[in-house]
Amino acid sequence: MNTTFLDACRGKKTSHVPVWFMRQAGRYLPDYQRVRNKLTFLELCKNPALCVEVTLQPIDIFGFDAAILFSDILIPMEAMGLALEFHDGRGPIFPEPVRDLQKITALRVPDPEEDMPFVLETIRLLRQELKVPLIGFAGAPFTLATYVIEGGSSKNFFATKSMMFREPELYRAILDKITACTSSYLIAQAKAGAQALQLFDSWAGALAPCDYERFALPYVQTILADLRQHTDIPLIYFANNGATLLRHTAGLDADVLGIDWRIPLADAIRQAGPHAVQGNLDPLALFLPKAELEARIAAMLEDARAARGYIFNLGHGVVPETDPDQVKIAVEAVHRFSQVNQN
Amino acid sequence: MNTTFLDACRGKKTSHVPVWFMRQAGRYLPDYQRVRNKLTFLELCKNPALCVEVTLQPIDIFGFDAAILFSDILIPMEAMGLALEFHDGRGPIFPEPVRDLQKITALRVPDPEEDMPFVLETIRLLRQELKVPLIGFAGAPFTLATYVIEGGSSKNFFATKSMMFREPELYRAILDKITACTSSYLIAQAKAGAQALQLFDSWAGALAPCDYERFALPYVQTILADLRQHTDIPLIYFANNGATLLRHTAGLDADVLGIDWRIPLADAIRQAGPHAVQGNLDPLALFLPKAELEARIAAMLEDARAARGYIFNLGHGVVPETDPDQVKIAVEAVHRFSQVNQN
Repeated sequence: MNTTFLDACRGKKTSHVPVWFMRQAGRYLPDYQRVRNKLTFLELCKNPALCVEVTLQPIDIFGFDAAILFSDILIPMEAMGLALEFHDGRGPIFPEPVRDLQKITALRVPDPEEDMPFVLETIRLLRQELKVPLIGFAGAPFTLATYVIEGGSSKNFFATKSMMFREPELYRAILDKITACTSSYLIAQAKAGAQALQLFDSWAGALAPCDYERFALPYVQTILADLRQHTDIPLIYFANNGATLLRHTAGLDADVLGIDWRIPLADAIRQAGPHAVQGNLDPLALFLPKAELEARIAAMLEDARAARGYIFNLGHGVVPETDPDQVKIAVEAVHRFSQVNQN
Repeated sequence: MNTTFLDACRGKKTSHVPVWFMRQAGRYLPDYQRVRNKLTFLELCKNPALCVEVTLQPIDIFGFDAAILFSDILIPMEAMGLALEFHDGRGPIFPEPVRDLQKITALRVPDPEEDMPFVLETIRLLRQELKVPLIGFAGAPFTLATYVIEGGSSKNFFATKSMMFREPELYRAILDKITACTSSYLIAQAKAGAQALQLFDSWAGALAPCDYERFALPYVQTILADLRQHTDIPLIYFANNGATLLRHTAGLDADVLGIDWRIPLADAIRQAGPHAVQGNLDPLALFLPKAELEARIAAMLEDARAARGYIFNLGHGVVPETDPDQVKIAVEAVHRFSQVNQN
């Protein structure tokens, strides 16, 4: 068992810097495309055997130090009773956005074993196969709320922010339910065998820091506190576009902060408080020529020596146009350079 | 003549804090809609009489302390020889993106008087009407390049960044031409009567700071240097989502840095070097109830007392759903509270 990832999460010394990529199982991989072409995205998410297959692909091909469950952050929102559609080339769609008390009251807090058994089954199957740790995940409440309030993706989050500002009781009622759902979902993932848990706050960076503090942070704190009561596995919080939120996130009771590519890694480490840090190569930097890609990785590893613990990752998900050979170059560079650095 | 805006740009003491809003002339105003409904967006941009009308509307209605020329940052890209389309409800489209040497060679550096006479005519007409200063503007080169390379708006700037990283000579050739075009366009605006100039770097925040420094900043520096040789009016640089770029932008030879809403105003002022600061209320904060909106503005004005010069603005453009009454509340609050503060 390769435990470098878990050790780095806890700030322990490791033989090399562990590396995994957000969306490492995904469309840039021909092997993934072959599976995905046979069924819809939601069908794939609900098929444990195929979820296992695509989760394992990047581990086998590139030697990543951690696997992340193949799923989607919106799966629990569907389990709350909301119709959810994915159409190729567009974002996710909730045809009936949640914007009034009646719709909020109708939201159920799902029983993960009952309502999302395919996720937990995927985790159990993966643990039989994997030689690296398995990361479970969920969306953070603010991010999930934007999808269900907007009815899908958004440019300026008009519906979410105007509810937040003008009908804060409605907003808080939605967020409370999503928070309860997320806590129980992640606890169930841990019980099924997930060895670390990541909360994805993909849209946190749309908020002014003062609004993040009031309307997003408290729900993250609640989930982390709930998880600490039920499990001692490492907890990772990733606020995308979150450089200016570090003042708030640095105080979170997580083990690791995920960092996007808009802040120099050295600055993020300085501001991350007691946390290990995970990140933060621009996903598009995977298009750099080999020598430049390797030089950029070497510089990051040098900066990362100041971290309490460090996990190499991208600053956001792998983009579909990425050449798998470039991913291979990056993973090998992290392993090779970090072994040299620690001798 | 109300010169508070120009005085604040230069760090001089003013009788009240001046205020204007990005996109203050725009779709949230019924008066604008009435004009706009008669013709296409591009037709409007090329009609000086109507551009004057919509530029003046928010000054007359709300008492803003500065007017900004009604136009679009992509007008000069069309003048470079590129077909440009606007379709309602979608972003702008360049049906023939610029991605090879042949297309780059074909780009012309336009003569503003010859190729964009309507912009300069609008400025001349506005100066006869206005009792507040007139701001001219252009897009910053990186931001303009993303549109012409991607062929429109983009989510992850795949085409732009992959050209930047894999074909830097092509990228630099495009940026050099856009930079030359932008310098001469802004110099022409100043000669026509613009009393301040703002460079909009709307997509700067998509770049890692190390890439911003290499692939965007140098072109901004070139334009500012060109402008300083031809005019002494105040220069404003706005990098949207640019909190982590302040280390670089603080060194620019501009008078004012525009700040988006993702960073607390007090932090931005601390990092802005010798510049006056303009910003940075979340445009969606205009949906706050009156008392809360006023409280937020009061807090910003308090923080702004540390600035070398301060111009109240939003952190990005007014969104179309905004209630004009809320804009009125905000403008009046800035004026009222800042007069009290300075007594």
